[in-house]
Amino acid sequence: MEYYQLNHSNLIDYLQSLPAVQQRFSSFDNLDVKEINDGNMNFAFVVTNKQDPNQSVFVKQAPPYIKVMGEQWPLTRQRMTAEINALHYQSSVCPEMVPEVYYQSEALSVVIMQNLSKHAILRTELIQARYLPRLAEDLSTFLAETLFYSSGFALSSGDKKAMVSKSCNQDMCQITEDFVFTYPFEHHEMNDYNPALPQSVIDSIQKNPTVRAQVAEMKYIFMNKPEALLHGDLHTGSVMVNEQQTFVIDPEFSFAGPMGFDIGALIANLYINYFSHAHRKSAESVNYSQWLLETIDQLWYKFEEKFLCLWSEHELKQEQTFMGKDLSGDSHQTFRQVFMQQLLNESLGFAACKIIRRILGVAKVADFMQFEDNTLRAKLETQALKMATTILVNRQSFKNIADVNKLAGVISSETVFNV
Amino acid sequence: MEYYQLNHSNLIDYLQSLPAVQQRFSSFDNLDVKEINDGNMNFAFVVTNKQDPNQSVFVKQAPPYIKVMGEQWPLTRQRMTAEINALHYQSSVCPEMVPEVYYQSEALSVVIMQNLSKHAILRTELIQARYLPRLAEDLSTFLAETLFYSSGFALSSGDKKAMVSKSCNQDMCQITEDFVFTYPFEHHEMNDYNPALPQSVIDSIQKNPTVRAQVAEMKYIFMNKPEALLHGDLHTGSVMVNEQQTFVIDPEFSFAGPMGFDIGALIANLYINYFSHAHRKSAESVNYSQWLLETIDQLWYKFEEKFLCLWSEHELKQEQTFMGKDLSGDSHQTFRQVFMQQLLNESLGFAACKIIRRILGVAKVADFMQFEDNTLRAKLETQALKMATTILVNRQSFKNIADVNKLAGVISSETVFNV
Repeated sequence: MEYYQLNHSNLIDYLQSLPAVQQRFSSFDNLDVKEINDGNMNFAFVVTNKQDPNQSVFVKQAPPYIKVMGEQWPLTRQRMTAEINALHYQSSVCPEMVPEVYYQSEALSVVIMQNLSKHAILRTELIQARYLPRLAEDLSTFLAETLFYSSGFALSSGDKKAMVSKSCNQDMCQITEDFVFTYPFEHHEMNDYNPALPQSVIDSIQKNPTVRAQVAEMKYIFMNKPEALLHGDLHTGSVMVNEQQTFVIDPEFSFAGPMGFDIGALIANLYINYFSHAHRKSAESVNYSQWLLETIDQLWYKFEEKFLCLWSEHELKQEQTFMGKDLSGDSHQTFRQVFMQQLLNESLGFAACKIIRRILGVAKVADFMQFEDNTLRAKLETQALKMATTILVNRQSFKNIADVNKLAGVISSETVFNV
Repeated sequence: MEYYQLNHSNLIDYLQSLPAVQQRFSSFDNLDVKEINDGNMNFAFVVTNKQDPNQSVFVKQAPPYIKVMGEQWPLTRQRMTAEINALHYQSSVCPEMVPEVYYQSEALSVVIMQNLSKHAILRTELIQARYLPRLAEDLSTFLAETLFYSSGFALSSGDKKAMVSKSCNQDMCQITEDFVFTYPFEHHEMNDYNPALPQSVIDSIQKNPTVRAQVAEMKYIFMNKPEALLHGDLHTGSVMVNEQQTFVIDPEFSFAGPMGFDIGALIANLYINYFSHAHRKSAESVNYSQWLLETIDQLWYKFEEKFLCLWSEHELKQEQTFMGKDLSGDSHQTFRQVFMQQLLNESLGFAACKIIRRILGVAKVADFMQFEDNTLRAKLETQALKMATTILVNRQSFKNIADVNKLAGVISSETVFNV
């Protein structure tokens, strides 16, 4: 089938032609088509049976350009192939946290899936200070399972290389290389600074050779360490939640990359949200800020525990270990500690880059943008930037996440500049 | 063309059918075919015109098994495709150091190339204490050019990913994973220990959790860091020399991997050779040992200088830099230092694994095997193992190669055990 663009007038006919979608609706006579304008890259529609709103599907299609920019910004449809592959992989290891895919077509770059109508975007919930008791538990499961099972600890050497070859997603990686690791640090014309953010604060990053060298190192790791199949854009806008369930969506940036990039993305966005709350002195805000730090703590420790558990179980089952027989009885343990320490360090490095790019780069987050008072926003951004540069430059020396949380607490209570 | 095996009876007919080979010989009436039995993996022949010995070609063919083991040890012919790709890449960036390829066939897994009749294997020359004035200069050029031009500093992000996808060579990588990074460390049945090597020395590696964890870390880097197109087996048996020229041969292990693996392989084999000379007290041996250390020193420094020079020149020409614009004027420099320090550390880690595997693993080297006195051999092996574990465990703290050389000097002058 040749590619064509789905729209309000042809979508229902298309859906009705697909057996996998036919069974989702008792009738196609009274469907409501609503275009969703959240995303920047792709077209998205929710199609609902007006007679029974429980009957609905979510349709996502990648055009051969960046949707919000228009046809003069071409972008290959490779990203939808990557998303389809990622959804299949993720649901094979972690089905309860990935929307069910009903139908996909690489030719049309379309995927038709479960409509998460009873869930809200995590970022929005965090901004509204909602407690989500399952969050750390669920996201740590998602990270542990998706990262472990696509790693060289679980896959054979050959299968791992095949996964890497298949999971390049080069156009989307190029976007990340530019917009996360390069432009925000070089005073690029595409950057967007809060006018109230002092130039000295911007310079303390862009003109700091230590920071710049560390960011370049993280960029190099991003480009040269395909250790697992990542989500690739795991910020709090890519998670949908309610009190009972957590879903991870939108893996269009998925590629074979460093595990710390997914972990760091989540941590970064949780710290960003933390700084948006921690300046408020009400008991509610203090409690919520505390809950956020606990969530970060739990996210890392539960991830670590689950990943190590999967690793041990897998090696026990395979009767074969990555490093070979453990003749002293404590070599496995030593390697696993070294590995986890290294992963924490890289996660912090990536988290730092992700925090900085959300403040100096073009892509902003509502956690900070909600503040109409630019001076207040600049104060919070400055705290977050200080957090980012500190964990970036000292990432080798943090031995646990509790110390990182302590640092966040100290920074949020400091007066970073007079307002 | 379907695969068939070349042998004494069909080789000349085959060569005569190839226009690219026809022009190498004035006549096919008086050719001498000599099978070369140096290699373990592949068949090799030198074909020479008896009337004019300057007319000769080298023919290498990969059978679908390991040659020395026979058909019951199957191995895909992928390795010859990898070798052909590597020879083409290497000669595109460093033509003066790679044998000229006259003809290749993936279908027959055969390559026909320049016969290096006036060159000797570097390992043999080093064992015989021959001075090779061009060695450090040439090998540093080979490393700098092949590693730089296949890295993400030279290739576009997309071309880099395409190179990685194409350069898996998974069967050969599996062999390295097993025989370099696993078996020698776990007391595997395929290992082969010098009977005079004390069990305590073997245990000090195999039962040392710090050493084992560091080796596992190097194995993980080997499997998860496709930063450049490597030779993949760059020991001193893969280099042919005379006083005027240096050639690098046999890239059948070539794959997209960590730069330090090629650098480390050379360094490892030069240190192995060093320990085979340094126990001798004659002025000649003292001088030669000194020359070896100077060669290692020069190899690293010249490599570093050339790599950095290629990097600067490339970025100047492209008017684009890996890390983005340098706003402070010293950020590039800082990143390059960080990068080179990291590369030295990884090179030392890989060198350590390579030294150990040549002593505890199945594949031995003549540098040590030349000694019929097992006790003397065990003494030298123990020195080399001590060197290896020290540089492995402390690889982060070596800031320059001179300190590594100092360590070699100290260890070679110690009595490691009573003989």
